[in-house]
Amino acid sequence: MRASAQQGVNNALSRIEQRDGELRAWSHVDAEGAGRQAAGIGSDAPLAGLAIGVKDIIDVAGMPCELGSPIHRGRVPAHDAALVAELKSLGAVVIGKTVTTELAFLHPGPTRNPHDLTRSPGGSSSGSAAAVADRHVDAALGTQTAGSLLRPASFCGVVGFKPTHGRFSLAGVKSCSPSLDTIGWIAKDVATAALIHDALTGAATAVTAGRVAFTRTTYWERSEAAVRKAFEALAARMGWHEATGPAQELEALHMAIMRFEMCRELATERLQFAGQLSAMMRDFLDPAIVPAGQYVAALEARASVDIEAIFDGADIIATPAALGEAPLFGSTGDASFNRFPSLLGLPAIAIPFARGDNGLPLGLQLVARRHAEPLLLATAREIERRIVWRPSGEGR
Amino acid sequence: MRASAQQGVNNALSRIEQRDGELRAWSHVDAEGAGRQAAGIGSDAPLAGLAIGVKDIIDVAGMPCELGSPIHRGRVPAHDAALVAELKSLGAVVIGKTVTTELAFLHPGPTRNPHDLTRSPGGSSSGSAAAVADRHVDAALGTQTAGSLLRPASFCGVVGFKPTHGRFSLAGVKSCSPSLDTIGWIAKDVATAALIHDALTGAATAVTAGRVAFTRTTYWERSEAAVRKAFEALAARMGWHEATGPAQELEALHMAIMRFEMCRELATERLQFAGQLSAMMRDFLDPAIVPAGQYVAALEARASVDIEAIFDGADIIATPAALGEAPLFGSTGDASFNRFPSLLGLPAIAIPFARGDNGLPLGLQLVARRHAEPLLLATAREIERRIVWRPSGEGR
Repeated sequence: MRASAQQGVNNALSRIEQRDGELRAWSHVDAEGAGRQAAGIGSDAPLAGLAIGVKDIIDVAGMPCELGSPIHRGRVPAHDAALVAELKSLGAVVIGKTVTTELAFLHPGPTRNPHDLTRSPGGSSSGSAAAVADRHVDAALGTQTAGSLLRPASFCGVVGFKPTHGRFSLAGVKSCSPSLDTIGWIAKDVATAALIHDALTGAATAVTAGRVAFTRTTYWERSEAAVRKAFEALAARMGWHEATGPAQELEALHMAIMRFEMCRELATERLQFAGQLSAMMRDFLDPAIVPAGQYVAALEARASVDIEAIFDGADIIATPAALGEAPLFGSTGDASFNRFPSLLGLPAIAIPFARGDNGLPLGLQLVARRHAEPLLLATAREIERRIVWRPSGEGR
Repeated sequence: MRASAQQGVNNALSRIEQRDGELRAWSHVDAEGAGRQAAGIGSDAPLAGLAIGVKDIIDVAGMPCELGSPIHRGRVPAHDAALVAELKSLGAVVIGKTVTTELAFLHPGPTRNPHDLTRSPGGSSSGSAAAVADRHVDAALGTQTAGSLLRPASFCGVVGFKPTHGRFSLAGVKSCSPSLDTIGWIAKDVATAALIHDALTGAATAVTAGRVAFTRTTYWERSEAAVRKAFEALAARMGWHEATGPAQELEALHMAIMRFEMCRELATERLQFAGQLSAMMRDFLDPAIVPAGQYVAALEARASVDIEAIFDGADIIATPAALGEAPLFGSTGDASFNRFPSLLGLPAIAIPFARGDNGLPLGLQLVARRHAEPLLLATAREIERRIVWRPSGEGR
């Protein structure tokens, strides 16, 4: 049985109080507002008792939404983002806002990895992953354009869920690259990720898992040895067959679309507030690097990708979720493995499945066809059940 | 030679002062801000001297953006929408905000048709079309989800330009149906529409027109007799061949996608502020009417539409832009002819080409393949040159 809404809020607040001084997963906590919201929730609401964090590029009425950037300091939206309104109507209570990298790109915020405070939690949904991994909340909203849900989930040893592109609303969410941006959530386990999905869609997650194939992809050689070894052992134990996997060219398509669109979506910041951008962001937002013709060609090439060839007869494609363990604080890590599902709008989930050489979590990525979230979640749940990895709990 | 920025602003302000008492195209005019902005613009800026209006679902820093809805009354964004920032950087000056229907849907604002004050200007970019038609400004930003740029342009006897879906940024624009929403502009003539396009893209409009085919579509029988007669006469005079045109089923796909997504994008308004929605909007935002399965099927059907069959060897498809003349004030008219380019993300333009039985403008719609804006604009310019229709000028 889930805790009552008020208990859920109290548990979250006391955990944050104890732990967030060092971790810095939260940019804003609203104890009073959360208490008020919890008081109004019936115990029969589908998500009653679920306290959540919301990445600080997603609007919550009355809470600062500063996008990890001084350009937006002091911004307090009057209204909830559409998905926040839906979650509140289902009984979830927003505890506060979680730290994002600058404008959901690469420049890190202050958040540390709860498994090792010298390490990055990943990005850009940094605070959401860290807050869930450190058990402040059971779930937190995030977004992904390249690997911003699955990568931090992998580094923090929690579940990261990216639905099909376009499936849930981005109204009230800062835009980065609309052809790729997807709202999703980080959760403590697959059951919690599925609970939120099912409450939002009214659909029940499938009961039987899909047929899985694995692929090493072209990032294999760049992955840490511990990832490769653990992944191959898992594939063998599960009896997965090997699929061809995505072509190397998809990475360049993803990068061209993302860069062109970010230059355009962030035109206000680029043209009017360049002095308040990080050097990393300012360098990236150079519209001369990807001309419109290259962008349009990348969109056309994306539209003609043979997705069935990638799945190769399977329902689900498995890859590592990241190249290895969380990097040292400063970089938010590499999103290579996450680019092809982001490019193609495919639903994907990361679940922790092993530990690396430093004892830090390693994530498994599972990818399904568009709109096959129920099958993806059922499959992830079945694999999670069979995996021996356990969170370190009081790991620090 | 274009006017200087300061002249452009002064002309617009004095025209608004004289005319907008009855017309009510503007929800906000910022004389002081426009003057300040104009003072900073060099005469060599590509759009120097261009005073523009901005539809009131698009953010302009420091100006109220109230989306035609009491739910958003008093909202004043701190930052420009991305496309507004780009236009300002090119030398355009924002005079103020133009009236939109409620949340860019059907419930009308106060704006009247400048050709006949008892008539509607169309919607949802109502104020943008009326302000350009009444010569307050040469151009105004708008958006289209079904027919919200081309329909009001047609009713007001001006040019309405909808680029390819996704080509220009919607950051800072209220979302309605992201699979369809497109930002574009209303302009006094094709040259002005092309000037803005070319300044934004750095591309020059093609010099030679494309090959045009016409189609009556399945809306033919519902169109006014004057439209049918004028359109057939134009097609014969131009020597256009007849193409098959879009299938009837596309209308239902458009409607399913738009309704499902609007229920989702406007979740905050629907769940938290239903009492402040019009009855029309409240009835429309019923999530039970289009279930997720129907939505996903509509997306899949859209992805498999044979676009080449619609074009039938031509570069450009011509249809009427609306069923007839502007309706009486109260309804914003029917978007039937505009749905297929909106559904398929195709660039489209409306140009005035004839008058109806009441002497009011009738519009021609031209549609091109994705990203073929230069060819579309060149073709529209060539047709505009050959059309005998002239605006009524002091028509009221």
